[in-house]
Amino acid sequence: MAIEVYWGSGSPYAWRVLLALEFKRLPWVSHLLQFSKQEHKSPQMLALNPRGRVPVLKDGDYVCFESLAILYYLDLKYPQPPIFGRTPEEAGTIMRVICEYQAYIEPHLTTIVDAVFDGGTDLVSDAVTAAVHAVASEARTIEGRLSKSEWIVGATCSAVDMVIFPGIQLLKRALEKPQAAALSSRFMPVEVNYPALGRWMARVAALPGYERTYPPHWRGG
Amino acid sequence: MAIEVYWGSGSPYAWRVLLALEFKRLPWVSHLLQFSKQEHKSPQMLALNPRGRVPVLKDGDYVCFESLAILYYLDLKYPQPPIFGRTPEEAGTIMRVICEYQAYIEPHLTTIVDAVFDGGTDLVSDAVTAAVHAVASEARTIEGRLSKSEWIVGATCSAVDMVIFPGIQLLKRALEKPQAAALSSRFMPVEVNYPALGRWMARVAALPGYERTYPPHWRGG
Repeated sequence: MAIEVYWGSGSPYAWRVLLALEFKRLPWVSHLLQFSKQEHKSPQMLALNPRGRVPVLKDGDYVCFESLAILYYLDLKYPQPPIFGRTPEEAGTIMRVICEYQAYIEPHLTTIVDAVFDGGTDLVSDAVTAAVHAVASEARTIEGRLSKSEWIVGATCSAVDMVIFPGIQLLKRALEKPQAAALSSRFMPVEVNYPALGRWMARVAALPGYERTYPPHWRGG
Repeated sequence: MAIEVYWGSGSPYAWRVLLALEFKRLPWVSHLLQFSKQEHKSPQMLALNPRGRVPVLKDGDYVCFESLAILYYLDLKYPQPPIFGRTPEEAGTIMRVICEYQAYIEPHLTTIVDAVFDGGTDLVSDAVTAAVHAVASEARTIEGRLSKSEWIVGATCSAVDMVIFPGIQLLKRALEKPQAAALSSRFMPVEVNYPALGRWMARVAALPGYERTYPPHWRGG
């Protein structure tokens, strides 16, 4: 029985799961939901996840949601190749950097992305400015890691790359919008301001199966 | 070489780690830091965790921080008894409920606790009211789980109990403050409003070694 994935185009959380499935070369059945039609809030979806959020993974009778939990489940169920390292120490550090991303980067990144897509004058608010400073500072830390190693933790692609990459892609997409021009110069082009991070992004995008994970509605703009 | 733990009294994040160590009956060396003296920001601590946060675990030469990462490391390094379940499915569900707690409960719980301890009129703000509604709703969900099972996920105490328990204890402590009286009636006494949750709290408090994990400065008030 193939693994089924309920997801939405552009959801960074869903993207993490697709990256993990492709990395582990697991076949998966796609259920691409339309957020605009509220398909993620349908009775069928609420029966799987009462919060009406994606991604949701269904593996036979087992249902899991919350992207980090899905990555963890997949790694235990289908251990090769591992995405949480090969030793307890490596696993702890991968999880640590994931936790740091979620606690200290993601909220600020979300502030910026929401401000860009909501439009309006929020882009010059103190909250957005503070978020830009925070993300820029954290990006320098990641740049430091990636200037010494091809992947964020350890010698191979891991769950931490899968967690962070979609968030950075979403930020990049937001900063490419015309209304974000003033914010954009702080980060863009990534390849100039954060060269190691830019090379890492190209490295992830060159992984086998990557094209199948790319948000469909992002193609062509 | 014993495991060393750098922690602070009353930190719910540090408490999680102590619960895990006691559950696994691992000996640990305590480095209790005084937040009031900024000991968690000392040069020695910043060398271990540049963010100057606790808990920090040192196991021989290996250093880990972020409480969830420490729980994960401990479970891989010292597998018996497990705290992330015995099957991939159980592990996935434990991690899912941890992720749900962190995403949908913890931020609101922090809003309430901060408002109580900061004092002032913030206790009647819309933000606090919204947080109270959210926490009450999520507490009903947990109450539902605990009315069917002794532990939040599965048949034994797991990492999800260790993650959630200190947060609930901190909320309870905040709500016992005189200035929180108006908020308090929504939740307290826990044993009346959430009886299964109350029994679960007593169950955790009866675990071997629990007394060693209890915040020292909470004793006697």
